[in-house]
This record gives sequence, C-alpha cells and structure tokens, in this order.
Amino acid sequence: MNINFKGQEMYDLANRIFPKFRSITGNGVRETLNILQEYLAKEDISFKIHEVPTGTKVFDWTIPKEWVIKDAYIEDSKGKKIIDIKNNNLHVMGYSTPIDKWVELDELKEHIFTLPEQPDVIPYVTSYYKERYGFCMSDTLLSSLPNGKYHMVIDSKLIDGSLTYAEVVIPGETDEEIMITSYICHPSMANNECSGPVVLTELIRYVKNIKKRRYTYRFVLNPETIGAITYLSQNLEHLKNHLVAGIVLSCVGDDRAYSIIESRYANTIADKSLKSILNAKKSYTTYSYLNRGSDERQYNAPGIDLPVVGFCRTKYGEFPEYHTSADNMGLISPTGLQGSYETMVLWIECMENNAKYKMQVLGEPQLGKRGLYPTISRKGSSNEVAIMMNLIAYSDGKNDLFDISNIIGVAPYELIPVINKLIENNLIRR
Amino acid sequence: MNINFKGQEMYDLANRIFPKFRSITGNGVRETLNILQEYLAKEDISFKIHEVPTGTKVFDWTIPKEWVIKDAYIEDSKGKKIIDIKNNNLHVMGYSTPIDKWVELDELKEHIFTLPEQPDVIPYVTSYYKERYGFCMSDTLLSSLPNGKYHMVIDSKLIDGSLTYAEVVIPGETDEEIMITSYICHPSMANNECSGPVVLTELIRYVKNIKKRRYTYRFVLNPETIGAITYLSQNLEHLKNHLVAGIVLSCVGDDRAYSIIESRYANTIADKSLKSILNAKKSYTTYSYLNRGSDERQYNAPGIDLPVVGFCRTKYGEFPEYHTSADNMGLISPTGLQGSYETMVLWIECMENNAKYKMQVLGEPQLGKRGLYPTISRKGSSNEVAIMMNLIAYSDGKNDLFDISNIIGVAPYELIPVINKLIENNLIRR
Amino acid sequence: MNINFKGQEMYDLANRIFPKFRSITGNGVRETLNILQEYLAKEDISFKIHEVPTGTKVFDWTIPKEWVIKDAYIEDSKGKKIIDIKNNNLHVMGYSTPIDKWVELDELKEHIFTLPEQPDVIPYVTSYYKERYGFCMSDTLLSSLPNGKYHMVIDSKLIDGSLTYAEVVIPGETDEEIMITSYICHPSMANNECSGPVVLTELIRYVKNIKKRRYTYRFVLNPETIGAITYLSQNLEHLKNHLVAGIVLSCVGDDRAYSIIESRYANTIADKSLKSILNAKKSYTTYSYLNRGSDERQYNAPGIDLPVVGFCRTKYGEFPEYHTSADNMGLISPTGLQGSYETMVLWIECMENNAKYKMQVLGEPQLGKRGLYPTISRKGSSNEVAIMMNLIAYSDGKNDLFDISNIIGVAPYELIPVINKLIENNLIRR
Repeated sequence: MNINFKGQEMYDLANRIFPKFRSITGNGVRETLNILQEYLAKEDISFKIHEVPTGTKVFDWTIPKEWVIKDAYIEDSKGKKIIDIKNNNLHVMGYSTPIDKWVELDELKEHIFTLPEQPDVIPYVTSYYKERYGFCMSDTLLSSLPNGKYHMVIDSKLIDGSLTYAEVVIPGETDEEIMITSYICHPSMANNECSGPVVLTELIRYVKNIKKRRYTYRFVLNPETIGAITYLSQNLEHLKNHLVAGIVLSCVGDDRAYSIIESRYANTIADKSLKSILNAKKSYTTYSYLNRGSDERQYNAPGIDLPVVGFCRTKYGEFPEYHTSADNMGLISPTGLQGSYETMVLWIECMENNAKYKMQVLGEPQLGKRGLYPTISRKGSSNEVAIMMNLIAYSDGKNDLFDISNIIGVAPYELIPVINKLIENNLIRR
Repeated sequence: MNINFKGQEMYDLANRIFPKFRSITGNGVRETLNILQEYLAKEDISFKIHEVPTGTKVFDWTIPKEWVIKDAYIEDSKGKKIIDIKNNNLHVMGYSTPIDKWVELDELKEHIFTLPEQPDVIPYVTSYYKERYGFCMSDTLLSSLPNGKYHMVIDSKLIDGSLTYAEVVIPGETDEEIMITSYICHPSMANNECSGPVVLTELIRYVKNIKKRRYTYRFVLNPETIGAITYLSQNLEHLKNHLVAGIVLSCVGDDRAYSIIESRYANTIADKSLKSILNAKKSYTTYSYLNRGSDERQYNAPGIDLPVVGFCRTKYGEFPEYHTSADNMGLISPTGLQGSYETMVLWIECMENNAKYKMQVLGEPQLGKRGLYPTISRKGSSNEVAIMMNLIAYSDGKNDLFDISNIIGVAPYELIPVINKLIENNLIRR
Repeated sequence: MNINFKGQEMYDLANRIFPKFRSITGNGVRETLNILQEYLAKEDISFKIHEVPTGTKVFDWTIPKEWVIKDAYIEDSKGKKIIDIKNNNLHVMGYSTPIDKWVELDELKEHIFTLPEQPDVIPYVTSYYKERYGFCMSDTLLSSLPNGKYHMVIDSKLIDGSLTYAEVVIPGETDEEIMITSYICHPSMANNECSGPVVLTELIRYVKNIKKRRYTYRFVLNPETIGAITYLSQNLEHLKNHLVAGIVLSCVGDDRAYSIIESRYANTIADKSLKSILNAKKSYTTYSYLNRGSDERQYNAPGIDLPVVGFCRTKYGEFPEYHTSADNMGLISPTGLQGSYETMVLWIECMENNAKYKMQVLGEPQLGKRGLYPTISRKGSSNEVAIMMNLIAYSDGKNDLFDISNIIGVAPYELIPVINKLIENNLIRR
C-alpha cells in the first residue's frame, strides 16, 4: 500500500500542543483540544466535547475538583527565581494546593522531588487524589542550592469544575465499531502525551477519506485512567454491543521500537490483528497484560472485558526519558510518528478487508486457464504462485485474513490484492 | 516384525518402467501399467484401468488432449543429431506441438530450456495447458553449439483421446478404507516417478497376503494433479464416507532421508499414525502442508478434506537431481525402496492393530500371578516391565495405539505383541 | 506464613521407627503404627487400624500370607556369624521361606544378593509373591568369603494372618476431602520408609489444630502397592465422590531436592496446586507419570482415576542410596523433613483458601480512597501495588488461587493476605 507521509504535519501539530499546561482536568486539556480541532477543520469534522462535573460518580471513582494553576516558583532571598513554571510546567507537582511561604533550605527540601539516578532531568510528579503541594527540579539544581531562606509560591485553586473529554464517531456501512483512543492529561511531555493525540487526529482524517467504510470508527481523547473510567461509565453497554476491536495509542512518537500490550488473555481480535501487522516489522516487542499501564487497563478490567490492546513505539516506562523533562520534542520525530501512523493505517485497511474466505470450486482450481499460473512447468517456477496457492488452500471458511496470514507467513495487507484477484475470478467468496 | 526383503525385486521393476515415455496422458502411462500388471499377475490381482475422454469436466478442470509423440530431435546442417529423444525422453518439452523447421542458432535458443546452475543435466519441462513446443538439453551442450543452421523436428500430435488411471481395491472385514496412491506421468525419472508405483505395487502384494484384513485397501495410480482431481471427481463421496487414512507415495526410492508432508491442519489419523512410525527412525523430516507438491494437494484441498498425508524418502524439490536427467536409476537403490516398503508395511500393520484399549481390572493388575512380572523385586528389576506397565496405565479407553506410543515413547509396532499378550490375559480389551 | 520448626521432633520419631522389621504384613507394621500413635496421643487423635485377612480378594490381587521372621543368619564352619539380621534387617530377603542347611560356598552364592556396582552396601530385596529364600550382603563381604562350609539359617513362617493399614479422618466444614498418604512396609530404610509416615503424622497434628477447616482430611498409612489396592478396594466409591486432591508422600526426608510425580495426564487440581507451591522453591523437578513408582500408581490407574500426585524431596530411584543399607538415618535430616512439612502446610493452607474470586466493581477500583494505593504518582511508585492490581485484574471469576498465582507469578500463599485485604474492602468475593 502507498501511504502518504504525514510525519512532518503531525510533528508540527505536536509542537503546538506541547507547551500547554495539561492535567487530568482544566483548561490545558481544553486548549489542546482546540488546537487539534483547528487541524481537523479542513476535513469538516468536529470533536464532540463532553464536560463531566466535579463530584460525579463514575464506577468506583468520583470526578475530582478542577485544578487551576496560575503561577508557581521558588525564589531565593535575593528574589532570584530558582525554578518557575513559566520555564517548565513540570516544576510544580500536579494538583498542588496553594502555598506562599518563606522557609529554610531544610524545610524546602521536604517539598522537592528529584530523580537522583537521572540528576539532570526534572521528574513529573502528581498528587491527584490527596491534597498536598510540591515542586520538582533536577537533582543537580537541588544539590547546588546554598543554605538560606527560600520563597515557595504556588498560586493554584481546586474548584468545582469538570473533567473534559472528546470523541469523534465516523459512521460506516455497519454499526460494528473500531475504536482508537489516547489520552490528554500530561503537561509538557512529547512522547508520553503529544504523540498519541496527533497520530489519532491524523487517523481521523484518514478514516474520513476512506471511500467505502465497513466499520463505524470511534476516536476518543480523555485524561488517562479517570477519563477512560468516565467514558466507560457512560458508554459501556454501547461498546459491549458494538466494539469489534480497539487500540490505545501511547508513546507513538519515537523511532526506536514497536510494541503491543496484549489484552487480559491475549485472545481478542485486537491482539491477533495488530500482531499480524507487526509481524511484518523487522522486530517488535510483545508485553503481556501484566505490563499494562495506559487505558488498556480500564478496557480490559473484569466486567468491562472489551477487545482492546495497547500500541506504542517504545513502551511507556521502558525508555529512560519517561515521565521526566527529557521526554521533550527532541525525543519524537516525523518518522517516528509516521511509523505509528502507517501501522495504524495498515491495521485499519486489514480490519476493513477482514473476513473468512471460502473456496468456490472443489479441489485445486486450474489457475492456468484464468491466466493466474505460469503455463510452463519447470523446476522452480511454482514458487511464483505459492502465495496464491497457499491462500486458496486455507480459504476453507475457517480462517480469517489474519489467521491465513499467520499460517502462510505473508503480511495480511500483502494478501489483500491477491484476495481481490481471486474474488474477481469467482474462486473465493467472503 | 520380520519384513521380507523386496528391495531388489522393486528395483528391477523400476528399471523396467524407467525408459517408458510417460506424460499425463498417452501410451507411456498404459505401457507402464501393463508392466506393473505383469508383476502382479502371480498374485492373481488386476488393476482396474479407467480411461476418461478428452474434454471431460473434472471439477474446475478439463481432461486435455492426449499427446502422441513419435520423434523429436535437433540436427545440425551436416545432419548430425545434436539431441534425440531416442537417447533421453527429457529432450522434448512435454506436450510439445509439432515442428519441422530449419533455424539459425539464435532462433533455436528461444526454444531450448537448460539449467545454467546445473550445467550438465537436462531439465524436465512441460507445457500441458498451453500449446507450444520446446527442447531441453544440458547448458554445457547448448554453450558448445556453433553458429549455423539447425533443424528442429518434433513429430507429435494432440489428439482426442483419454486420461488413464488404475486402481485396485482389496476388500477387508469392514468397508472402512486405507488408501495408498502414487502417480504415473513423468518420463524417465527414477525417484520422482518410478519409485512410487513400484513400492505401491509391492504393497498390493503384501496386503493381498494379509490373512485377516480389517480394512479395505484402495491403491490408486494416476497422473499427478489432473489425475487425482479426476479420481476425486469420480470418487469423492465414497471416500468421504469410507476413507480412514491415506498416503501419497512420492520419491520413495533414495536412501538419504524419511519425510512426511502433513495434511492441511496436521490433525488427521494419517498424520498421527505415520509420524508414530517415523518416530522410531534415526531421524525424519516433517514438512507442513505449506511445502506440499504432490497429490496430497488435492486430497487436502478445501471441500475435499480427506485424511491424507505425503510420504517420501528425500522430499521432491529437496534433492538436487529433482526434475532433471540426474534423477536416474543410480539415484534410487534396493535398500532405499526397501526402507519405504518397510515403513509402509509397519504402518499398515499398526493401522490394522489400532484401537482404543481399555483395562479390564481396577487398579494395577497383578502381573506376577500371570507370569508377566519378575518375582524378585530388587533395585533396577522393575525397568524390565516398564513398557507393559505403561501400556496398561494408558489403556483407559481414551488413547489409541498411536497415542499410547507417543505418550510412552515406544514404537507402535513394538507395542503390538505386548498388547496381544495382555489381551490373551484378559487384562485389556479393544 | 510463619510455620513452626518440627524438624527435630520428626527426625527423633523417624529414629524410633527406623529399627523395626517391617514388611508388607506383620508385626513390624503394627509396632511402627503404635509408635506413631503414641506421638499423636497428646493431640487426642487415634489411628483407626484395619486388619484385612490373608486370602481376601482386593481387585485383581489377593492378600498374601503374613510373614513371621524370628531369626536369620549365615555362619561359617567355625560358628562365626557372617551376617545376622540382628545387625541389619536387610540381610534377609523379604518374605523368605525357612531354611536350615549347611552348604559349600558355591551353593551359598546362589542365594546371596549383592550390588556389585555399589560394593559396600547391602541391597534391599523381596520376593512377596513367589515362595523362595535368600540373603543380602555387601559385595565386598561376599568376595572375602573363603571356600568352606556355611550354615544358612532362616527361622521364618508364612502364616494366615492379615494386612494392616491405618487411617485418620479429621472432619471439616464440608465433606469434600483432601487425602495425604504414605506407606509402611520397608525394613530399616530412612528416606524411602520412615520419612513419609513421620511427616504425615506431624501433618495430622497440624490439621487437627486448624481452627476452621473447610475440607475433611484423610490420612492413610498402608503397605505400598498391595496396601493401596486394598484401601481403594474398600473406599473407591467414597473417594470418587469426595476426594478433591491427594498427595502420596515418599522419600520426604533428605535435603537435596523437591519433586512432584504428576498424575496420569498431569491435569488435576493436585498437579496444579502442588506445582504452584513448588514454583516458589529455588528449583524443583517434575516427573511425568511415566516415572511413577509409589502409590500414585494405584490412585491414577485406569478406572480409579483419582486426582493424586506424588511428592518427594529426592525422588525414589533417583538417589544412589535408594533400596540399600545406605538409606539410613544419616541420609535424612531435621531440615530435610521440615522442608517437606512446610511444603505440605503451605499446600494445605492454599487449598483451604482456594476459590475463584470475582471483582465487585466495574473498571479498576480506586485503591487510593481505601488507603491501598500510594497517593503520590511518580516514576517507579506504581511497582509497589502491582501485585494487588494484577490480582484484581485476574479476579474475573475464571481463575482460582493457583491460576492467578501462575498468571501473575506470585506464590499462592503470598496472595492470601492480599486477597483477605481485598475481601475486607468488598472489592472481591469468592
């Protein structure tokens, strides 16, 4: 398949949303969605934005207060700013309560988080569900601070507000659904935040332009964990009745690896189909559900039981820059984003063409009379039609496209044109 | 088991049929069957010969015209024969249309097939389903030809005739059937042609002499592919109702290896039983159905779905002499043929003795009182009866002979006398 | 779990029963049971002793005569005792008929068993089911005997008596049963005789002191093979209806290894549960049912089909001292016995706590609000609750304790406190 190069456009879009100060609630999420919406405008598609009020029960959870952060810094006794969220929004612990207090270095340190094993990066720390405050900085900076007085300032509020999520549903010929989802809730991190929404947004454009869509496509962007739980609490029955397969995008912007996080028992069509696509890569890593971490956790929880897997380039938690200031725009690349985009496009195309195929003649068909077989039989010549013959041999009504791909060792998207040729010749039928 | 040595007789028989000029139709096939029939005469068994007219529809195929070849050669301007089918019937492309034309070397070359990577052998080439003509020779010979005029002569006809196949059915106590089949359609090749029919013919003699046959045996010789399709088109329903297991013999004359080509899902009794026999060989090679090439292709095609596997010494396509003039009588040997014959005899005997066995006493039986156990128990002595005890342990009505063989790691034919002893002692029952 | 150290008490008990002259019938068995009964007295539990008369039919077997042995020795012409069962009761072949005869060295040798490959040990030899006599000695001793006259004396009788076995049943809340069994029938051997009964006796004390027992516990001590067959012939229907899982203890006193002998198809709850416990050991060996040798043979025989496995430290037959005089009190140790005892206690506790657990909320529960989750989310912190989260993820009503243990790679007994915490918080339910 010929897939357009969208890597630079996606990278530029990621660069625009990178600086926004996101958390699991609040205006950072809304501003990010506005930028993505602008990007979609030329296709005439709109995100449907949902706001779920603070205090709403969602399964076992409750929508928390909305965090409003205006300013946060530490200054020394000479008024010199040691850290300031204007420079890097990781400097304040997410959901910090307000503070305005002069303290000695020792007391200051009780409220500082660093990563001693990576002394030059700022860690990303949050405390969503217990009210406290804190700052984050590099361990190098912390070690360099002389004794003295420091001014801790956090100008924040926890207000009754709402949690924001967005969805786009693009109808197909059937009401069976494919879902692609990612999260918006981390501040300035590139791979473990911006990459997912931009690839997802590009895929919305792709799906909108498919001429004949068999499936209905559902794209969802929500804050991780609480957002997916919220979404499920509002859509579980619908998804149980309609969802064929779903993929959670996370950390899809770097160029180092391909990864799948399996569903709870690794036995869904989502597992089989995505692995079938990834099999054609030079290499990829399979993580069992024990290594889950993003919203595949919620989609696979007992009682939810939806056919959803996770897809990453390098998996969250497996790259050193994860959840630090080093996860910046230098970590992701146009080619990294494009690799994810292409994988998802191939997956979508194969899902669209997936079926159980059945031979329409008894015995091997005579390919020769249909011009599908070389007319001279000599040593070696039969290799050329081996793929077609193998596809025919396993088109017995038991195997779908991905099964056949796995049995005969040919990528499913490479089988699609062969299948179409056989269908044209009335040799196989869905 | 004591199996008679029939290797030399089979080799001599192969030597008699080797020179015949066979193709998928025509007198070469008929002459070959006549020789095999002679060999069977002393047992008072006859092949039933079937002739299926040109133009007959067989599933997706049509019986082609019959090829009559009288002469074919190339001579140079001095009348010297460069090649002549009187020396080697591979020199003419199978199913060549007639030609009688003087040409320059360049034009001649357009009609010559060689194998540059094996410069000293004549390749075997056919064009059954498109009318054209051609010659085959060694690349060395072709390279040595000087410029000049050459006379291409093929005296052949494609006439309305028939496709010939032969079968022998030897009835047993039940109408459940074992089928053994091979092909007659290649000109002078020893392993990939003569070996199959001669081993099959020897097995007809063996089966005829079994005193009490449980199964009915069906032996079939047909041209490869089109012949098997023809046979299936005339016998499919019968085979679906009666066939227990079948084996396609191909390339069973050399002495280098043992091989099985599995059925489509490697899950039939034919797979299990033949593997169980081969497990006792020093080594053997398992080829999946993806590596099929002989008539197991047809017997396993979707909708046919018969329990048939392929059996070879060195598999077709896996030895360098395959489909060349080097597949001659020097490639096969009496011991090579005997190895295949013995394997098939063991397979037949095990099939005859195959059943699910069931213990007739509760708990372990007391073998000692039946003289089946050493009466002194000391360190090491128990090893001697381990096979019998293990056979008893898995005679629970769930496992057949081959299952037990696989579980306890003893060749199935070595279990037969033990089983008989236990049956005599009323300890197990079918 | 905190498990008391009972190793020294068990070793001392083994030391007391070691010298008794046991066989498959007779007073050696009765004296051994008396000593074990004494040990149990303080818990107010009694073995129920069963005597099954000589000649009784038990499935395919018949209870043999009872062997009464008073004296056995060989003396030389000077009246010097070469061997004497007063020194080691292995010196006489088990079930020897009486003899009192002066013979030359050559004739003597016909009645002597040695182990040439282990020249310094006395082998253990029996002839239960054929009447003959014999002596056992070290090969070194035999080689040193000069020519001359020797006096063979065996003062024994085979009388109509009975076979003795013992059982203890400790009722629980349900009539579903756990069975633990071992054998009493070998003379002075430590690992392959004394270890099993002493660990079993200690486990009776343990089970008696469990406050709330869900299962009924059945402990059985019988002569190997014929005793188990006898027991089954009297209790098969009851066991078929009530037995959940059973373990045969054999060679549980040394300190070298842990081993399981699987059931016939390795597919019972006994296999799964014991392996789940052993998985947490540094290493253990799995022997298939083909390597059986103790009473798991009978419990798994066709038609019996009970869910029973064998448990050993170093498996019978796998240690060089097996069935020789070198299997003495120096081979077993308090820590060796304790290792077996602890394994069985953990197995019992896990069986008691085994159930299929099911989540009571949809989606992942919010552990934080229950104090079960760290409130600050930062790189690395999530590892701490991974076990609880994984346990929740697979508490979907499909998996029992052992399944979950296997899936998430945590020992089942380490899951019990976590399960209890989740049950207290109404997050999971049996």
